Amino acid sequence: MLKISSRFDSGNIEVIDVTDDSSAVLEIPFDVGDEHRQWFHFRVSGVRGRAIRLVIRNAGQCSYPKGWEGYLACRSTDREDWVRVPTQYDDGVLSITDTPDADVAWYAYFAPYSHERHQDLIAEAQQSPLARVTCLGATVDGRDLDRIVVDADANPDARVFWVIARQHPGESMAEWWMEGFLARLLDSDDALAKRLRAAAVFHVVPNMNPDGSARGHLRCNATGANLNREWHAPTLERSPEVFHVLEAMKDTGVDLCLDVHGDEALPYNFISGAEGIPSWSERLAMLDAAFRVAYERANPDFQRVYGYPIDQAGEGNMTMCTNAVAERFDCCAMTLEMPFKDNADAPDPERGWSPERSRQLGAASLDAMAAVIDRLR
Amino acid sequence: MLKISSRFDSGNIEVIDVTDDSSAVLEIPFDVGDEHRQWFHFRVSGVRGRAIRLVIRNAGQCSYPKGWEGYLACRSTDREDWVRVPTQYDDGVLSITDTPDADVAWYAYFAPYSHERHQDLIAEAQQSPLARVTCLGATVDGRDLDRIVVDADANPDARVFWVIARQHPGESMAEWWMEGFLARLLDSDDALAKRLRAAAVFHVVPNMNPDGSARGHLRCNATGANLNREWHAPTLERSPEVFHVLEAMKDTGVDLCLDVHGDEALPYNFISGAEGIPSWSERLAMLDAAFRVAYERANPDFQRVYGYPIDQAGEGNMTMCTNAVAERFDCCAMTLEMPFKDNADAPDPERGWSPERSRQLGAASLDAMAAVIDRLR
Amino acid sequence: MLKISSRFDSGNIEVIDVTDDSSAVLEIPFDVGDEHRQWFHFRVSGVRGRAIRLVIRNAGQCSYPKGWEGYLACRSTDREDWVRVPTQYDDGVLSITDTPDADVAWYAYFAPYSHERHQDLIAEAQQSPLARVTCLGATVDGRDLDRIVVDADANPDARVFWVIARQHPGESMAEWWMEGFLARLLDSDDALAKRLRAAAVFHVVPNMNPDGSARGHLRCNATGANLNREWHAPTLERSPEVFHVLEAMKDTGVDLCLDVHGDEALPYNFISGAEGIPSWSERLAMLDAAFRVAYERANPDFQRVYGYPIDQAGEGNMTMCTNAVAERFDCCAMTLEMPFKDNADAPDPERGWSPERSRQLGAASLDAMAAVIDRLR
Amino acid sequence: MLKISSRFDSGNIEVIDVTDDSSAVLEIPFDVGDEHRQWFHFRVSGVRGRAIRLVIRNAGQCSYPKGWEGYLACRSTDREDWVRVPTQYDDGVLSITDTPDADVAWYAYFAPYSHERHQDLIAEAQQSPLARVTCLGATVDGRDLDRIVVDADANPDARVFWVIARQHPGESMAEWWMEGFLARLLDSDDALAKRLRAAAVFHVVPNMNPDGSARGHLRCNATGANLNREWHAPTLERSPEVFHVLEAMKDTGVDLCLDVHGDEALPYNFISGAEGIPSWSERLAMLDAAFRVAYERANPDFQRVYGYPIDQAGEGNMTMCTNAVAERFDCCAMTLEMPFKDNADAPDPERGWSPERSRQLGAASLDAMAAVIDRLR
Repeated sequence: MLKISSRFDSGNIEVIDVTDDSSAVLEIPFDVGDEHRQWFHFRVSGVRGRAIRLVIRNAGQCSYPKGWEGYLACRSTDREDWVRVPTQYDDGVLSITDTPDADVAWYAYFAPYSHERHQDLIAEAQQSPLARVTCLGATVDGRDLDRIVVDADANPDARVFWVIARQHPGESMAEWWMEGFLARLLDSDDALAKRLRAAAVFHVVPNMNPDGSARGHLRCNATGANLNREWHAPTLERSPEVFHVLEAMKDTGVDLCLDVHGDEALPYNFISGAEGIPSWSERLAMLDAAFRVAYERANPDFQRVYGYPIDQAGEGNMTMCTNAVAERFDCCAMTLEMPFKDNADAPDPERGWSPERSRQLGAASLDAMAAVIDRLR
Repeated sequence: MLKISSRFDSGNIEVIDVTDDSSAVLEIPFDVGDEHRQWFHFRVSGVRGRAIRLVIRNAGQCSYPKGWEGYLACRSTDREDWVRVPTQYDDGVLSITDTPDADVAWYAYFAPYSHERHQDLIAEAQQSPLARVTCLGATVDGRDLDRIVVDADANPDARVFWVIARQHPGESMAEWWMEGFLARLLDSDDALAKRLRAAAVFHVVPNMNPDGSARGHLRCNATGANLNREWHAPTLERSPEVFHVLEAMKDTGVDLCLDVHGDEALPYNFISGAEGIPSWSERLAMLDAAFRVAYERANPDFQRVYGYPIDQAGEGNMTMCTNAVAERFDCCAMTLEMPFKDNADAPDPERGWSPERSRQLGAASLDAMAAVIDRLR
Repeated sequence: MLKISSRFDSGNIEVIDVTDDSSAVLEIPFDVGDEHRQWFHFRVSGVRGRAIRLVIRNAGQCSYPKGWEGYLACRSTDREDWVRVPTQYDDGVLSITDTPDADVAWYAYFAPYSHERHQDLIAEAQQSPLARVTCLGATVDGRDLDRIVVDADANPDARVFWVIARQHPGESMAEWWMEGFLARLLDSDDALAKRLRAAAVFHVVPNMNPDGSARGHLRCNATGANLNREWHAPTLERSPEVFHVLEAMKDTGVDLCLDVHGDEALPYNFISGAEGIPSWSERLAMLDAAFRVAYERANPDFQRVYGYPIDQAGEGNMTMCTNAVAERFDCCAMTLEMPFKDNADAPDPERGWSPERSRQLGAASLDAMAAVIDRLR
Repeated sequence: MLKISSRFDSGNIEVIDVTDDSSAVLEIPFDVGDEHRQWFHFRVSGVRGRAIRLVIRNAGQCSYPKGWEGYLACRSTDREDWVRVPTQYDDGVLSITDTPDADVAWYAYFAPYSHERHQDLIAEAQQSPLARVTCLGATVDGRDLDRIVVDADANPDARVFWVIARQHPGESMAEWWMEGFLARLLDSDDALAKRLRAAAVFHVVPNMNPDGSARGHLRCNATGANLNREWHAPTLERSPEVFHVLEAMKDTGVDLCLDVHGDEALPYNFISGAEGIPSWSERLAMLDAAFRVAYERANPDFQRVYGYPIDQAGEGNMTMCTNAVAERFDCCAMTLEMPFKDNADAPDPERGWSPERSRQLGAASLDAMAAVIDRLR
C-alpha cells in the first residue's frame, strides 16, 4: 500500500484516497487565507519498481490552471537530483505517472528549498569576510527575516542594490537563484564581482517569506497576505516581512532593485519592468533595457521576447514591489521571472528548469548589473 | 539589540527578557505533557564580536539538574562545527557566555539533528543496493516512521538485529551515531560489515520519535508520552511509534536489540543491560558481557566502569525497550548511553562529546556485534 | 639542514650550496637546447618555523630578467594553495625569504600543473557525453598529444574553434586556464556554453608541450625547440607537437584560434593579435576588437590598455602560431597572455595571479567567443 | 589505430606490434638490473566501443608466472575507479580483452599510486598537528625518502613503531594501505588511534622505493637492488633507501615493525613472521599471534590460514627487513602481504582486491597494534 505524507518543511498535500497498491487521489490545500493554492510537496513510500499514478483532482481549481498545461512534475529519490516525470492535465485533473527505482520518492511542484537550507545559506554567507548578516525583524510566525549585506569593499560613493527573492514562497527557484547569485557575489577571485563590490553595497534578502515557505504555501504569508501586493502600505500585523524591508530601504536608499520570482505559466525567463509607474522616465527605460540586453548576452536562458504585457503609463499596480520601489526611489526596479516548467527556447527534457540553471541565472545577473552600474545616478 | 528565535526544526526556548545589547534571560519550555524539559536550541542575531551572556533561569527546574553540572553548551556559527562555550551552573541558573566571531550564532543542548537531515539519511540509505526502506506507520503528528532493512546478502538462517535510536528526541547524538553505524553497515568494501550482512538481517530505525525531534522536545512524543516507558503496552493513540516497531518485531523476531540513547548526567559511554528481567540467564549475561568487551576494545570511547546501577533480579522496569524486548524474545537487548557532556576518560575541551565521535562509536558497534553474532542462538 | 630536491614532475633547480640551517644558493638550469631558463620548481625539507633564505644567483642570466622585477615567488605546503612569499631581485640575484609553518615546502615560478593532473583532466573530459578525446600523435619523448573534441551538439554548418595552451611549458597558468575553460564548455546546464556548442566545433589541446612540462622547461620541447617559433615549417623530428596540430587544423579548417600563454614581465592579462600578417583585414580587425571588448566586459581581469607593441603591417613573425594560423586560414587568431606576477589593476597581495583566477579567465573566454561567433564567416 | 604509451609516472610496457584497429602485442620490460619484471602500466587511445585485445607475449618469462593464474588486469577510464577486465593466461601469454566506453583507457597490474599522489600524501600528513615530516635522505635518483613521525601525544615511555611500505614498488597496494593507515592514525576523533598515539611514537615510511615506483619497476630500486634483500648490509651506493631507514631505526630503537607488501600469487591477505631468526622466542611468538588474531577480528579480509611456509628455526633470510629488524631489535616484526588478485574468501568480481579495501585494511591495522601494545616490552 502506498503511504503518502507531507508533514515536513514545505510539505503540502491532502490525501483523499489511496485507491490501491499503486494509485492515489489527492488535493492541493489552500494557503492560509483560502485564496491561493498550487504548491505541492509530498513523499510516497512503498513505490520501488511500481507503476504508480497520483491524481490531483482539484488542479483545475488552483490559482493558475494554465500552469498545468505542458507542466511536468518534479520527483527525487535522493533529495538532491530532481527529475521531471510524466504528467497529464485533462479536465481539471493533473495525473502524475512514475515508476521509481527506490522505495521512497518525493514529489514537488518544483525542487523545494527548505528552511534548514535557508539557514545553511545564511550561515555560509557569514563565513565570508565580504558579508555580514543582519536580522531585519520577525515574521508572523516568529522566524527571522534575514538580510545579507555586502559592503566590505565598497567606496564611500557606492550605489545601493537591493536583491530580494521568494515573496511568493512556492517559487522556490527564486532561492536557488540566490545561491548562485550569492556564491558569485562573494567569490573573492571573481573579477566582475570584485568590481561590483567596489562600486555598490548589496542588500540581499534570500527569502522574503520564510513562513509561507515552511508552511508549503504558494503565494501567501502566515496571515494570508500576498506580500507582493503589500508594498503600498505594509503593516506589522499583516505583512511585517514587507514592512521591515521597506523601512530598511528607506534607511539605505535604493539605486537598483531586483525582485526574483517564478511564473507558473510562461516557459521563459524574463523581466517585468516598472513602465506603469507615474514617474517612468527615459533614464529608467534605458537602464531597464541595458540590464536586459546584458543579461541575455551573459546567459541565453534569459530572453527578451516573451513576458507579461507592459503596463500603460500610470497604470502600474503600485502595491507591487517593483512599481512601489521604482516610484519611491526613482530607481531601476525589475521583477525577474523564472519558469516552473522549462525554458522553451532551450528545453531540458530530463530536468526542465532546475535548481542548477536557476543558480547559473543568479550568477549571470552580475553581468547585467555591471552593465548599468555606472549609469544608475 | 540581540534577536533570539527558535522557530525552526527542534528549536526550543522562551525569551523572558532581552536585557540589553549583550544579554538575555531565557527559559526552557516543557515538552508536551508538561513533565519534561531540558532540550534547548535557538539562534541569536547581532552577536559578532560581542561578549554576550545568556541566562537560562529555570535550569534547576529541568528534568535533570545534575545534567548541568560540568556541562558546556554547544554553539555553531556555520551549522556544521559545534564547539563548546563557557557555561556556569549556579543556584539553578545556567549562564552561557560567549563572544562569537560571526553575526548569527546557534546554541543547542547538543548538536541538533533535523528532520531534513533525517530524510536525507533515509534517501541516502535507499541509494545503496544493500538496503531498502519501509515506512512502519505514521507518528502522532503524521510523520513517517522509517525503517531501513539490510537483508540483501543475508543467508536463509540469518540472525535478526534491531537497532533503534532517539526514543528520546533531545538525545540527538543517537541519530549522529546512526549515521556512522549505517555508513559502515552499508559500505560494500568493509569486510567486517560484509560478514555481518551475510549472517544477519538488520532492522534499523534511525529516529523513533520524529515528532518530538522536530518539536524540540527532550523526552516525549507529540502526546506527551515518554516512549521508553511504553513498551509493555503501546497504543496507536498514545505511542504509535512504539506500537508499530513492536508489531514489526513480532513479525521478524529479535536476536539482538540495541537501543541508542544519550544521558544528561554521566560523562561516559556505557551500556545498560536487561539484568532485571525475569528470564535473565547465563546465556544473556555472556552475550551482554562479550558485546561490551568487544565494543570497548574496538573503540575506547566506550567503557565498562561507569554506568547505571544494575537492576536486581526480577526488578527491571518492563516498560522500557531493552527489558521488554529481552524478555519477550529471550534475546540480547541493550541500551547504549552516550554523554551530553564528554567522555571524562578522554576529554576534548574544544568539542566535548560530538557528532563525529558519535558517528565513530556507531561504526565501532559492528565490531561488538561481530563478537556475539555466532553465539546468539 | 635544509634538504632541497627537484626530482619530480616539472622540478627544476640546481643546488649550488646549502649554506647552513636556513639558507641555500641555487641556480636555474637551462631547458634542453641551452637557450632558455627561468622556470623553477623544487621542494625544501626541514623548514618548519625556520626563517629561510633561498638565493637564485643566476636569475639575471635567465631569459627574462624583467620578469623578476616586482615578482613574488609561489610557495605551497599543501600542494593546493599557492601563496606569494617575499622575494627580492637585486644585481641579478633573486632572493626568496620565507618562514613556513610546515616541515616541507614547495616553491615554484608559478603554481605547477603536473602531467598526472593533465591526464586527470583528459580522463575527466572524456566522462562528458559532450566530448571525445583523440590522440593527435606522439611527442619527442613519447607522450601523447591529446586533443579534446567537443562536437556533440554542433550543427552541420558549425564554425571551427581551436584552443591550444602551453606551447611554452613553464607557462602553467595556461593549463589552469584550460581547466576553467573546459569545465564551462562541458557544463550541460550552462546556457551560453550550450549556445556555443550548438554553433561551433571545438578542438582543444590543453597542453601542446607535455615533454617540456614534465621536464621542468620554461619554453622548449625535448629537442630544444621553442614551439611557438615552429609554425612556418614544423617537422616530425624537431617539433612533432606543432606538426600534428597543424595537420589536424588543415583537416578541419579554422575559424577562430586562441593560443594561451603567460608573460614573464607584464602584470596584465591581454591579447596579442595578428595585425602583422600580410592578409590582415578590416574583418579580422573587427573580430579581434569585438572579442577583446567582450572578454573585458565578462571578466575585468582582462584588459585592453597594456600589451605588446602592435606589429607593423606585413611584419608579423610568421613562425608564431597566431600569425601562421591567421594567415593560412584567413581567420581570427589571437594569443592570450596572463601574468606570472599579478594583474596590477586588481592586485591580490596574498596569491597574485593564481590558478583560480586563471580558471575564471578561462571560463569567461566563452563570453568573448559568443560575441564573435555569428560573424566569423 | 590504437595508440599505446607508457611515458608517465610508473608507466611500463613495450609495444611490439599494433596489429590492427583493435589489437596489439606487448612485452613487459625488465626493471633496471634485468632480473625482475611483471609490473605493467600503459594507456591506450582510440578504444571507445571497440573490442580490443592486448597480448603480453612474455608474461611467462616474468618474475612470477603463477601470478598470472586467475589474475584479471585492472583498467580505468577516469583514473579513479579501477575495474577488472577479462584476462586469460595460456602458454606463457597473457591476453586482456576489453570494450571500454571511453576514448582512452589506462591498464595496470594494480591500481597505480603515483609520485604526485605520494607527495600529496606527505603534504596532507603535515597539515595535521599530530604529525611531522622528515626527509631521511635521498634515493639513488635524487628523490626524497620521506618519513612521517607521529609523536605529538606520546608519553615519555612511549613504544616505538615503524611502519614501512612499498620496498617493492610494483606493490602499489602497499601505499594505498598507507592512506588508510595514516588517515586513521591522524584522526583526532578516533578513540583507538588516540590511545595508540598516547602510548607509542610512530615512524612511517609510506614509500621505501620512490625511484622504482616512478620508473615502473616491479621489485628493484634505480640500481637494480631488491631492497628487501639488503637489510643485512645496505650501502649508500646500492640501497640508500634501506641504509637511511636502518640508521634511523638504530637511533630510535624499534618495538614493532610492520613491512607492507603485495603478493603476486596468493589470493589472500596474510602475515609472514620472523620465525626463522636465531633469537625467535616465546615472547615474539605470542606477540605475532596476538597481532594476527586481532587483525583478523577487526577486518576479516585478513586471515590466518593461507600464507608462506614458516621458516625453520635459524633458517630465516636475514637480508629481509622483517628478519633483520626482529633480530637486531629483539622486537615484533612482521611482513604484511596483500593480493594482486583478490581475497578468495570474499571475492569482489568487479574490482578484486582494490585501493579502497587496501585502505580499510590499513585502518584496521590499528586494532591489531592496540592488541599488542601493552605487551611489547
